[in-house]
Amino acid sequence: MPATIPIIDCDVHPYPDAQRPIEPFIPSAFREAVRLSMDVAPGSGHANPFGVNRRDANCVDPKQVATDHLDRYGIVYAVLLPGGMNIGLTRNIDVGCALASAWNDWLAESWLRADVRYLGSICVNLNDPFKAAAEIRRAGTNPKMVQVLVSGESEHLYGHRCYYPAYEAMAELGLPLAIHPGREGALGSPTPIGRPSGYFEWHCTLPLTFQAHLISMITEGVFEKFPKLKLLLTEGGVAWLAHTIWRMDKNFKALRSTTPWLKRLPSEYVFDHVRLTTQPLEEPADPDHMLQIFDMIRADRTLCFATDYPHWDFDDPTRVFPKKMPDELRRRIFFDNAADLYRLNAK
Amino acid sequence: MPATIPIIDCDVHPYPDAQRPIEPFIPSAFREAVRLSMDVAPGSGHANPFGVNRRDANCVDPKQVATDHLDRYGIVYAVLLPGGMNIGLTRNIDVGCALASAWNDWLAESWLRADVRYLGSICVNLNDPFKAAAEIRRAGTNPKMVQVLVSGESEHLYGHRCYYPAYEAMAELGLPLAIHPGREGALGSPTPIGRPSGYFEWHCTLPLTFQAHLISMITEGVFEKFPKLKLLLTEGGVAWLAHTIWRMDKNFKALRSTTPWLKRLPSEYVFDHVRLTTQPLEEPADPDHMLQIFDMIRADRTLCFATDYPHWDFDDPTRVFPKKMPDELRRRIFFDNAADLYRLNAK
Repeated sequence: MPATIPIIDCDVHPYPDAQRPIEPFIPSAFREAVRLSMDVAPGSGHANPFGVNRRDANCVDPKQVATDHLDRYGIVYAVLLPGGMNIGLTRNIDVGCALASAWNDWLAESWLRADVRYLGSICVNLNDPFKAAAEIRRAGTNPKMVQVLVSGESEHLYGHRCYYPAYEAMAELGLPLAIHPGREGALGSPTPIGRPSGYFEWHCTLPLTFQAHLISMITEGVFEKFPKLKLLLTEGGVAWLAHTIWRMDKNFKALRSTTPWLKRLPSEYVFDHVRLTTQPLEEPADPDHMLQIFDMIRADRTLCFATDYPHWDFDDPTRVFPKKMPDELRRRIFFDNAADLYRLNAK
Repeated sequence: MPATIPIIDCDVHPYPDAQRPIEPFIPSAFREAVRLSMDVAPGSGHANPFGVNRRDANCVDPKQVATDHLDRYGIVYAVLLPGGMNIGLTRNIDVGCALASAWNDWLAESWLRADVRYLGSICVNLNDPFKAAAEIRRAGTNPKMVQVLVSGESEHLYGHRCYYPAYEAMAELGLPLAIHPGREGALGSPTPIGRPSGYFEWHCTLPLTFQAHLISMITEGVFEKFPKLKLLLTEGGVAWLAHTIWRMDKNFKALRSTTPWLKRLPSEYVFDHVRLTTQPLEEPADPDHMLQIFDMIRADRTLCFATDYPHWDFDDPTRVFPKKMPDELRRRIFFDNAADLYRLNAK
């Protein structure tokens, strides 16, 4: 990798610990409810038996992560995605909303102040889209907050119109919606049919949820309704996008009269509004196949680099891409596409 | 297209009509139950507002279809997939089993005798895997029955061990399992999250169910348990396979200790055991992209041609593939791969 390419890492996961706890940020009225309800946010029933984190990393100390991760790889900006992404699954809607604000205040005070390279994600409870919109407008006043973060598991497909109030706030503030895997299967089944038996199987099916949300948002016309809204699909796989674009475009030709609100080919909305992070990048035996996929999905516009630090399936920036990848494409994926998405050059 | 390439069409849909009704094939004990339960097989709630069939075709008369479809395109064999594919969704399990036998006897008498070019699919109620196994052994004595047909919607992912008795019968008789779209969403939701709002959206999500079934069957080790079993994914899309193979192989490297029954890379099981039919073929703006996908998924082994006659999204064999597709690959997709799968040269 040329030493001259700066890096934006779009997926780094910080955790609270005893030094930087989240409890003080939760309003006292809700603190006991949160403590008692640690077990009511339903789990997916699938967990990596070897643990979610690498054995050598845990991401609880901003200074240590700056040294171990940012300095090591020359990362200019790292976008932080905390566990509050799953807040929309909290059964008690008001507790969920209170927790979302707590995550946002904790992130701002504990991490965003610790190093200029950290950028934040606003956690919201989309299960109350009106309070979510208010929280976006509140937490979004911090210029270091660069996106709104939600989990793949959700009450509805994200093209559902119930989410419009929150999308309106995101479009207004220029904050992309970022979807990240989170407890897929917690509210039902993580596949269209039933429950996978193991973590390996469950993990292979995660991209199904991303495909479903993307098809929903495109066909329901979210990007016609909110022309300034952007979508970032985080950690959901990359290579399936070619298929999804082509299938939507082919069906559009036959069925467009059923979606009169769509003014353009589905793929055009994708290329203008949708970005994907790279990790976990597929690794075909023939690296040329990956470069061909990059061409099909217009990776020079759509892909943003991410490591998923400190998780077990971390992608190492020095090793994950095909060696033959052109330098210009490498630069766009490592830096430019995320800088454009988050308007970092204007900050 | 070279005039010398014979064609096997792997997806043609025959219907009963007044001349060839299905009722006489239903045992009298179940006939009234079936008549009364026309509305208890749950529908998906999504239907093409323009109708499921082309305006110029309905597929109720074997002689007329032979002229209109087989003669017109030079089709040597056409594999018939009747509506009995959805039998596994019937709420009354015994009625479903009786109906499965009725569909099989109707198909044998009304269609398979009408023209030597017709090949049949055995419909089964996998919701009773023991009766399904018995039905496979009964109907499978007809050498013109070449596969066992089930719907994408099902009670469980098809890697679930409850289906083993039926798979044992299929492996014993050398009959592939064919999965075809059918009422996705009838038993729950057709996506991991929720219900699409319209038919266009629903139709774009159908490949999710195929991905889920394939990941389930591979990771649960069905092809280690039944080394002679083959799987045919019918009308579920093609280009997503590259992503799914790569994701399974990458995860296998990290998580294989959780699936000790898998002796080989997931992709190796796919290339040896799994075939896909082509329709509805994705149609990227750049036809070279389709040829690159064909290379990634080893289309020279995995793809079998199908039209989906008489449905609305019928693929015309003279127009659907990129013009630049090599003749040898064209021949394998149009004929050889299906001839190998169904062992037609040995018949």
